[in-house]
Amino acid sequence: MVNGIPASRGIGIGSICVIEEHELKYEAIKIEDTEKEQKRFHEAIEQFKKETEEMAEDIRKRIGPKEAEILESHLVMISDPTMADEMSNMIATGQCSESAVEAVCDMFIGMFSKMDDEFMQQRAADVSDIKLSLLKILLGVQDVDIRKLPPGTILVAKDLTPSMTSQIHKENVAGILTEMGGKTSHSAILARALEIPAVLSVPNITSLVKDKDTAIVDGTEGIVYINPEGDTLSSYILKREEYIRKQSELKNFHGKETKTADGAAVELFCNIGTPKDARKAIECDGEGVGLFRSEFLFMDNKRMPTEEEQFSAYKEAAEIMGGKPIIIRTLDIGGDKDIPYLNMKKEENPFLGYRAIRYCLGNKEGYRAQLRAMLRASAFGKIKILIPLVTCVEEMRSVKELLSEIKADLDAEGIAYDKHIELGCMIETPSASLIADLLAKEADFFSIGTNDLTQYTMTVDRGNADVAYLYSTFHPSVLRSIKRIIACGKEAGIPVGMCGEAAADPLLIPLLISFGLDEFSVNPVLVLNTRCVISKWTKEEADALAEKVLSLSTETEITALLKANAKE
Amino acid sequence: MVNGIPASRGIGIGSICVIEEHELKYEAIKIEDTEKEQKRFHEAIEQFKKETEEMAEDIRKRIGPKEAEILESHLVMISDPTMADEMSNMIATGQCSESAVEAVCDMFIGMFSKMDDEFMQQRAADVSDIKLSLLKILLGVQDVDIRKLPPGTILVAKDLTPSMTSQIHKENVAGILTEMGGKTSHSAILARALEIPAVLSVPNITSLVKDKDTAIVDGTEGIVYINPEGDTLSSYILKREEYIRKQSELKNFHGKETKTADGAAVELFCNIGTPKDARKAIECDGEGVGLFRSEFLFMDNKRMPTEEEQFSAYKEAAEIMGGKPIIIRTLDIGGDKDIPYLNMKKEENPFLGYRAIRYCLGNKEGYRAQLRAMLRASAFGKIKILIPLVTCVEEMRSVKELLSEIKADLDAEGIAYDKHIELGCMIETPSASLIADLLAKEADFFSIGTNDLTQYTMTVDRGNADVAYLYSTFHPSVLRSIKRIIACGKEAGIPVGMCGEAAADPLLIPLLISFGLDEFSVNPVLVLNTRCVISKWTKEEADALAEKVLSLSTETEITALLKANAKE
Repeated sequence: MVNGIPASRGIGIGSICVIEEHELKYEAIKIEDTEKEQKRFHEAIEQFKKETEEMAEDIRKRIGPKEAEILESHLVMISDPTMADEMSNMIATGQCSESAVEAVCDMFIGMFSKMDDEFMQQRAADVSDIKLSLLKILLGVQDVDIRKLPPGTILVAKDLTPSMTSQIHKENVAGILTEMGGKTSHSAILARALEIPAVLSVPNITSLVKDKDTAIVDGTEGIVYINPEGDTLSSYILKREEYIRKQSELKNFHGKETKTADGAAVELFCNIGTPKDARKAIECDGEGVGLFRSEFLFMDNKRMPTEEEQFSAYKEAAEIMGGKPIIIRTLDIGGDKDIPYLNMKKEENPFLGYRAIRYCLGNKEGYRAQLRAMLRASAFGKIKILIPLVTCVEEMRSVKELLSEIKADLDAEGIAYDKHIELGCMIETPSASLIADLLAKEADFFSIGTNDLTQYTMTVDRGNADVAYLYSTFHPSVLRSIKRIIACGKEAGIPVGMCGEAAADPLLIPLLISFGLDEFSVNPVLVLNTRCVISKWTKEEADALAEKVLSLSTETEITALLKANAKE
Repeated sequence: MVNGIPASRGIGIGSICVIEEHELKYEAIKIEDTEKEQKRFHEAIEQFKKETEEMAEDIRKRIGPKEAEILESHLVMISDPTMADEMSNMIATGQCSESAVEAVCDMFIGMFSKMDDEFMQQRAADVSDIKLSLLKILLGVQDVDIRKLPPGTILVAKDLTPSMTSQIHKENVAGILTEMGGKTSHSAILARALEIPAVLSVPNITSLVKDKDTAIVDGTEGIVYINPEGDTLSSYILKREEYIRKQSELKNFHGKETKTADGAAVELFCNIGTPKDARKAIECDGEGVGLFRSEFLFMDNKRMPTEEEQFSAYKEAAEIMGGKPIIIRTLDIGGDKDIPYLNMKKEENPFLGYRAIRYCLGNKEGYRAQLRAMLRASAFGKIKILIPLVTCVEEMRSVKELLSEIKADLDAEGIAYDKHIELGCMIETPSASLIADLLAKEADFFSIGTNDLTQYTMTVDRGNADVAYLYSTFHPSVLRSIKRIIACGKEAGIPVGMCGEAAADPLLIPLLISFGLDEFSVNPVLVLNTRCVISKWTKEEADALAEKVLSLSTETEITALLKANAKE
């Protein structure tokens, strides 16, 4: 038994095929005839574009437009003059195409991977894919044809390249195991879209197994069995059937209202990162957007995005949502995210530093542009504004002051906006939780950010593996804090949502029902599961469980009790 | 008017004398006759020792043994073979003495100043002083004779060297202004001991003023007036008289009980960093030690201190306290403090990292030695054990388990210890505050660490200047947290102390009286002032003020109200 990152749910059982990685060796020779080398380079680029377009087209037809986006983004990146021009410039100085591709890609990979943000980490993986594909073309290396694998194959590889994934068919691949990649890597995204169970980042899996080994891939738990005993195998065959039954049950929740077993309706929204994700939210049957992170506009850019650029992005998302609520969070950025043009200082403790609303209120001109873009876009949909990392009443008041100035300007200019636009306060710091009653007087709604709330309450950097054992929303302190925040919102008569990962956690959901959470905002792919879990609890059952939970003193006891009472 | 760090209280008015800094220029020549150079170097070392000894002796007689300690520590450092040997080794390779002194000192300064700890920062300043003195001796540079200054001089310098401070007499120096140094620099320590008002770290002060300018030094507020208007001058002359009156009033509190105006007794303890500081606590009339930081043993060392070394240190401190309580905090250390032999990882957010009790429970053998040393020392005084950075009940339970194992060992070995030794829990994380009722069941007493509690509640790195505007104990959230912690302690019948800087803050004291704090632990020099402030409030008055304070929503309103009602 080995463990990895559970990246695509479900259970796959089958026979292993290990995809060997070709060594991409070349000699970095000095080029004399640079014009000829330029031609060779540009031909490789053209071939890359052609192959990528074909693969994208295949995936679009076979799987869906969202899933083709990764490959389309590769096309955009390589067509952007910056990358290809840099490579071309290096070739002009006498470097060979392989060296130029490697050096420029490595530079971009280094830049992107330093940023502590899933979205940018993915960019690093994208460039890594582009590099590999270009080198293969330049060196004339051919990939294995995965289409010819027999049905029931468990695919094992260091990492999945886009060309590999484009050949994966649900009919012949029963499971995927890799040594690299996380929950948001493109292997994970494709695997989830194809509904193929996958466990990623399994240490040394390519050397642990050989072709024709039997394997069980538990993509829900992140567990892999190699050549399992008969009883393990038979119990997993049953589990697999149970999982398939559940999945078809989930599909019944599409188009249904979100309500508890005793009929109390709650809102079920989605967390998104780009305007295009709004489409995904709709496809996955989200009832609105509970968190639209505005960072993509700033991170995917070489300079501050203009008011106009922001306006179009917010308008696009609002229009896709077609009147459904969309809560846009203002810039949530800090010294841990390396955005060169913002010139932020390197900080000793960036999570306790000059970030989010602190940065925005210290750079009011930029903030004004963002708020103005949001207000203008509010004429095209049901936009709400959300403020991150609030710690004191003054911060909300400063934002409100800015908003009324901007509204007065818009009025004077005759520009339309939603005069009743709502302003929300994220509750994700211990201070905000402690003064939630005071903040409720300054906000139209609350949104609980469980990731940061847990991090700050437990004083645990959630990226630090050495203290990960303390990072849990199920500590009594964090649960009490969540309960109190919701109670303060209710007391003040404003709705309370939750946009952290915990909102989709089947173990937490009964507690949130008991506390009275009004809105759950989850990853689009988790909408149906969340709706299903919510539908299984009555308020009375949830209250009884919550009462027991809150009488316990330790996280261990609490998760054990919740697991014993889970309904999924 | 200019501002700086208020480093020594009181008001000084007088005529400026700027101490110019000599440029210590030399050419880094290659030495041929290294033996001759070694001789020159060792003569300089001897002269340095002789001068330092004389200065230390002068300060000891004139001011006191505590104040001479800084210079004595310089003697210890230069007598430690490491430093002089390193220099000598460099000279042996042909470097001149000046280069060797500079390089070795800079290495130590770099090492010490990277550690985020006042104590180690002070070590860096010490080495800086040693470097300057040695270079002056080697280059034959003479300092100004400060003894000849006329009475009423306001001394202005980039920084005060030990040789300068040894010449300062209260009779002729009315105030001190420097461009460098903080509250714990040796300039600050000397200034406080001599009761000379001082404002340090005043930007560019040496170029802002010239000799014979009139200046007002407000060492309480950190404000400096250069050539003030007549009305400013006369109002400060009155303020100065008022201050002097108050100081003599304070002396009356020596030897008195600490009690409120209506006679309720509270405990007034001291925060200390070394066993010797315990003597200071006694001299300053502290009634016990509320926080003995055990870090000095680990930071002032090249390897893990042995159980025996720790035992002697704790025993020494306990014996000095002679039966008065002494609360020793177990190792409070993390990735931000560079202790090479502990091999701690560099962390992205060390304040949210693997530190304090987390590190200790992960390295149980070392922790066992510390706890055993504390238990053994408890046979020689009234020692209590305090656990830092607790976030959950499990941590306290783990410590208790370790302690009972060690007690069983000691019983088996027939080694004496206090069988009723008390175990305390620091409440300095939001999580601990939220579950103070649960932690109270696991602890014999609480100690509130306001510095960290404020930092974590407000999610503000207290060392980060860009967010310093949010770092205040007077935010409603932090005050509510403190109130709740004390209430939980009372409810459970265990005493609650406070060892953060806030315990000595005259603005906070009435609130702490109202909340019911049992024990105030402060810097020894603040004992009398704290006792005086406590004596001025009745519970009823404090309650009335606290009620008003807790009805306010912002830190600004709260501090304004507290200032308007201050009794000092």
